[in-house]
Amino acid sequence: MADYSYGTVISSRIRLARNINGYPFPAKLKSDRQAKEIIRSVSSAINRVDEFVLKYMDGISDDEASILVENRLISPALLDNPTHSAVLINESGDVSIMINEEDHLREQCIRSGMSIRKAYAEMSAKDSLIARSLPFAYDEQLGYLTACPTNLGTGLRASVMLFLPALSLGGLMPDVVKSARRLGLTVRGAYGEGSVAEGYTYQVSNEVTLGVTEETVLKLVEQVVSKVVEIEASERERLKRGEEGLAIKDKCLRAYGTLTNCALMSHGEFDKLCADLKLAACLGYIKISDISAVDELMIKMKPSNLNVLAGRSLSAKERDEYRASYASNRIKSLCQKR
Amino acid sequence: MADYSYGTVISSRIRLARNINGYPFPAKLKSDRQAKEIIRSVSSAINRVDEFVLKYMDGISDDEASILVENRLISPALLDNPTHSAVLINESGDVSIMINEEDHLREQCIRSGMSIRKAYAEMSAKDSLIARSLPFAYDEQLGYLTACPTNLGTGLRASVMLFLPALSLGGLMPDVVKSARRLGLTVRGAYGEGSVAEGYTYQVSNEVTLGVTEETVLKLVEQVVSKVVEIEASERERLKRGEEGLAIKDKCLRAYGTLTNCALMSHGEFDKLCADLKLAACLGYIKISDISAVDELMIKMKPSNLNVLAGRSLSAKERDEYRASYASNRIKSLCQKR
Repeated sequence: MADYSYGTVISSRIRLARNINGYPFPAKLKSDRQAKEIIRSVSSAINRVDEFVLKYMDGISDDEASILVENRLISPALLDNPTHSAVLINESGDVSIMINEEDHLREQCIRSGMSIRKAYAEMSAKDSLIARSLPFAYDEQLGYLTACPTNLGTGLRASVMLFLPALSLGGLMPDVVKSARRLGLTVRGAYGEGSVAEGYTYQVSNEVTLGVTEETVLKLVEQVVSKVVEIEASERERLKRGEEGLAIKDKCLRAYGTLTNCALMSHGEFDKLCADLKLAACLGYIKISDISAVDELMIKMKPSNLNVLAGRSLSAKERDEYRASYASNRIKSLCQKR
Repeated sequence: MADYSYGTVISSRIRLARNINGYPFPAKLKSDRQAKEIIRSVSSAINRVDEFVLKYMDGISDDEASILVENRLISPALLDNPTHSAVLINESGDVSIMINEEDHLREQCIRSGMSIRKAYAEMSAKDSLIARSLPFAYDEQLGYLTACPTNLGTGLRASVMLFLPALSLGGLMPDVVKSARRLGLTVRGAYGEGSVAEGYTYQVSNEVTLGVTEETVLKLVEQVVSKVVEIEASERERLKRGEEGLAIKDKCLRAYGTLTNCALMSHGEFDKLCADLKLAACLGYIKISDISAVDELMIKMKPSNLNVLAGRSLSAKERDEYRASYASNRIKSLCQKR
């Protein structure tokens, strides 16, 4: 029997918001000098812990900055005030600590698959070590103090990225969003706040940070995700056997056909076709040995990543040509038609 | 070096219009009896010559009639007055004689490639044999008498079907049409009078039938076709190397990708994609062992032909599914990506 939960959970992300005692929140920092002082303190605290690379936002090229955003290692907001901000990134690239974004520290760990526990364990261990040499702003009653009240308390945001083609195509996402909200969770399109989900991809995350333990939050997110995965699975089966099944199959197969036979491919079209390619794998029309490799390829094919791959700054047309050639070869090697 | 004239000449067609002395032209026939008398005379004249099958238009099903039209063995006009009309078809299916269309006899021979001489030789030999037992309406001064003055004289229409993607895409067809007209030839979209050419396919044929010899007509058509093939070849090279070359390559490759990866395919889309597939072969992006097999497949995939292939009358959706499955397998076996 087909495994209809295949490829549903893309990745898990833990984010902790922290601030340092004795400094105003980043938006209120008086000078570059003060901002740089914070950057140095955080950097030396973490580098007692692990091998992290420090990148000042006013010390990198536009292309480097874009790549950090494309790879989700920094938020675009970190670039708003580049003389104040920096990021620390570990060797394997799964942990990054933004300095002077909305809070002094935004610690983040991303792991593929359903791994919020592992990600939390890793991030929390690093956080404790940093806390040994940096006095975090903490209130016995409230918990960690943050620039925005929505992060107050645990400072924890646990989120899981989900691929939900059947719920999307079946028009059931509004119900999922509503049910999740009742439980204190937010479900939104993965690309941009409140946006309609491109590529059938959604992010489930906790809303509440105040008056709850980290354990409660992680458990809730796990439970809801597991339920959503289950509903998605049964909807996939329905979609495949339903009246529109053949049209869906046609759309999926064509996506594979176009991805593996083209000479020009824009970034927007590529993402759309990859979503349909993944759907083809979910419904069993195409075999993909490792579906997370498609997600990795989607990041690699973003404009700035592509420049790095090509070894130079490409024009828009050159990029579309390079993407078509690189991606079609890669997808051919990843896929096997059934 | 690439052969840029590859696949340009699709097929050649010879048509002779003849009428029998002592009968009014078909439009003026008084009765079914008179019409059937003509059918029997022609049939017995030809069956002294060769093994032809006679089909009365009032004795075949709608599907059979559609297939004859799809396979270009009869014109749609032959079906306008089915109690008056019939067709004789030889075993190999390259010669057909319509009875009581616009003229009493419309003798036609179609051959693949540049073969108007061979087709004329074959048709002319049969015509002479028929003439031994049937008195054709002939005037020493004018030549063969026909219902419409545009066929008077030789009654000969020699036409060649050409695949002209580069001239079409380059916007040069209006010039070709104009030049050909000056020489007494008509160039028009292959599907329907005066239509814009679908699938980059055009028909070149002589306009003049009066006051010229058959030899003059054949020579003129041959010369003009050979010139058009030459211009098309140089335009293909220009198209490939030009600014739009990559976009054209992209379009061609995608056509191949879609044709070989789909679950539903309408007849209209299939024809369009096949034209781009053939273009891919002409420009050397895909290797097709036998390009005429694609033309044959295009006929096979027409609605009524498809019913025959499937062995039953399919619904529109079933046809699209059957076409997708049959054609994608066939095209995969015909093509080799370079």
